[in-house]
Amino acid sequence: MSARRPHVVIVGGGFAGLWAARALASAPVRITLIDRRNHHLFQPLLYQVATAGLSAPDIAAPLRHILRRQANVEVRLADVTAVDASARRLHLGDANAMDYDYLLLATGATHAYFGHDEWAEHAPGLKTLDDALRLRRHLLVAFERAEAESDPARRAAWLNFAIVGGGPTGVELAGTLAEIARHTLKNEFRNIDPGEARVRLIEAGPRVLASFPEDLSERARRQLEKLGVEVSTGVPVTAISDAGYQLGDSFVPARTVVWAAGVAASPLARSLGVPLDRAGRVIVQADLSVPGHPDIFVGGDLASVQSEGRPVPGVAPAAKQMGRHIAAAIRARLAGKPSSPFRYRDFGNLATIGRMAAVVHLGRLKLSGLLAWWFWLAAHVFFLIGFRNRLVVLLNWAWAYWSYQRGARIIFGAAGEEEPPDQ
Amino acid sequence: MSARRPHVVIVGGGFAGLWAARALASAPVRITLIDRRNHHLFQPLLYQVATAGLSAPDIAAPLRHILRRQANVEVRLADVTAVDASARRLHLGDANAMDYDYLLLATGATHAYFGHDEWAEHAPGLKTLDDALRLRRHLLVAFERAEAESDPARRAAWLNFAIVGGGPTGVELAGTLAEIARHTLKNEFRNIDPGEARVRLIEAGPRVLASFPEDLSERARRQLEKLGVEVSTGVPVTAISDAGYQLGDSFVPARTVVWAAGVAASPLARSLGVPLDRAGRVIVQADLSVPGHPDIFVGGDLASVQSEGRPVPGVAPAAKQMGRHIAAAIRARLAGKPSSPFRYRDFGNLATIGRMAAVVHLGRLKLSGLLAWWFWLAAHVFFLIGFRNRLVVLLNWAWAYWSYQRGARIIFGAAGEEEPPDQ
Repeated sequence: MSARRPHVVIVGGGFAGLWAARALASAPVRITLIDRRNHHLFQPLLYQVATAGLSAPDIAAPLRHILRRQANVEVRLADVTAVDASARRLHLGDANAMDYDYLLLATGATHAYFGHDEWAEHAPGLKTLDDALRLRRHLLVAFERAEAESDPARRAAWLNFAIVGGGPTGVELAGTLAEIARHTLKNEFRNIDPGEARVRLIEAGPRVLASFPEDLSERARRQLEKLGVEVSTGVPVTAISDAGYQLGDSFVPARTVVWAAGVAASPLARSLGVPLDRAGRVIVQADLSVPGHPDIFVGGDLASVQSEGRPVPGVAPAAKQMGRHIAAAIRARLAGKPSSPFRYRDFGNLATIGRMAAVVHLGRLKLSGLLAWWFWLAAHVFFLIGFRNRLVVLLNWAWAYWSYQRGARIIFGAAGEEEPPDQ
Repeated sequence: MSARRPHVVIVGGGFAGLWAARALASAPVRITLIDRRNHHLFQPLLYQVATAGLSAPDIAAPLRHILRRQANVEVRLADVTAVDASARRLHLGDANAMDYDYLLLATGATHAYFGHDEWAEHAPGLKTLDDALRLRRHLLVAFERAEAESDPARRAAWLNFAIVGGGPTGVELAGTLAEIARHTLKNEFRNIDPGEARVRLIEAGPRVLASFPEDLSERARRQLEKLGVEVSTGVPVTAISDAGYQLGDSFVPARTVVWAAGVAASPLARSLGVPLDRAGRVIVQADLSVPGHPDIFVGGDLASVQSEGRPVPGVAPAAKQMGRHIAAAIRARLAGKPSSPFRYRDFGNLATIGRMAAVVHLGRLKLSGLLAWWFWLAAHVFFLIGFRNRLVVLLNWAWAYWSYQRGARIIFGAAGEEEPPDQ
């Protein structure tokens, strides 16, 4: 082989891609990290941007800046449209191509509407900063519309909020939205009482936070109800339109339905031509490489993999561990050594519910309520990338905590100019 | 007359409108404050949002929240499309109408291209948060495009930045942009040296910051040049396209031209059917009411008024003073007393240039450099509305100051998805 350094291309600057790039800092490779966006996003706090508690830049940092001191990495802002595995080449959206020696695909997941793509228009999801800003705008505009509406039925529809999906994102959104209606907006309107807003969390399965033990699910449900959220379980939503949603036998007029129910892998996986699971994720080998393509790895939410007989969950710690494992596997390949199977180390499960309410499950430890909330807060602030962000986020939270206020209640766009669709 | 409280309608929640609403807190009136946006904007720091130093919510606060404790005010998010002065009625964008007894128009100003509206597309201006976020995106994307560009001439065009207009906004933008190129982005790119970016400030008149004494203009120019800005005076830009701009005899290839040269009054003034000045502002009477319509007042950037024989400048302190004066004039009308003429109290003139560089002119006091910068910083943080914003802004600045970093370097939208126009 030539003395040329092997070219490792990483597609996606999320937890898997970024942690892999960092773990290859001292490896004899040159790395190109490609992302469609210029920033790494701390996705676990995205719901805080959507609910106006944090500014978008508080939970994001430019990939270039994070990697500026790592000389073997080049960051490229581009859209990868297809993988040509036989030619070891990527096709980019700007009509360029890029050759690789090793490839890591870590482009994550997007929303899935279980065959009802027409719901996407009426029930937006929450995966990117742009999603969060759109949702923030919609939530804030809903209260403005209710204030200006004189017809009681139409007004009620603007004050009717439904969140579909009882996983961590759905629970966080529902709890925070109830807090906004009951506390943050109190006394600010003259024609409506924002506290009369109905916030309903809808889970088709038997309980919310299904990845937690049953007793913690029950405690989460009670905490949600205490915050003012109606929790509906066991009945699926069967229709969503701009007028409302169908739940079992009843149609509920509502202008805001948020989708937090399903995810599907990023479509880039399809161009590999290898078997995918039902959610469109790549079924990888034990070392996270793609069957038949030992030079291609898949990590993060795009990978379907088992560890100790159980599927690895789509959470940030798993993605970081996969990123580091893939870096080690590439080093092993370069040294002509066999790579080891990936093993997921489960450090526990946290979910926040709202003001002073959360659930924590770490091995035998189960917490709920205030103590769990402090635990959740400390863990999330600690893991936020970047010193500045951590301080600003803490300050914003301290302020929000004492004042019940939310600092980012800004509607972008003007009333007559970029009116949001009537959904 | 009936016992019904007179209805004061204020259009525009900027400095004039908001200060008028507050000054009427104890008056026997009911007030409706209408704005197209849900927030009051601290416009003097808008350039910091455009240059990624601050997040948009740092310099804005919801009007509803600011006025929540003032029981005689109702805030309405709507677009006013016309004033029917004879019927004392406003027409709103949502097909509704609203009657008033007293009206304050304070809708401010927008960009003016001196008869070259076709330049708007290639040389965006900076008046709203949306403008600032678009400009931020464009500036950050320009460096990304340069990094990906292999042709030296095209690359140079992406690294060529021009700011048209040598007033405070132009000076602030030019100084900050030079700092970003030379310091913030240092070492983050692999194919370009951001420090090679050319930042040019173009003023058609003889000197920058023409509202300051000549010696301070000269000091500002020297400080700009020290920061790496090329200052061009005395020659106007005669053409702007997506390829560059024409300055005197030479065409300069540049992908970024920012417009900071002219303002024009908001078009709502035209529907009054009264004389306007050249910039489209309403020529008001001495008490800031509209000739022939004693129940209509105009304040802020929309008003053309003289004080002690000199035109009142379009700055925040003047707008606040006008707002308070109009509130007093309405109280006088209600009491059947004559209203007094408006007198502008000039507390001085400040402009910031960049890192540790500013000019200050207060009566006989003239400062420049570091001391002026601290003065400017203290004044602006003090006047920022809202306790939380002040703390967060200070923290962001302290961090930016020590690290040369800017916390809001986030490009919204994805590479393949919402590509900015090639301008």
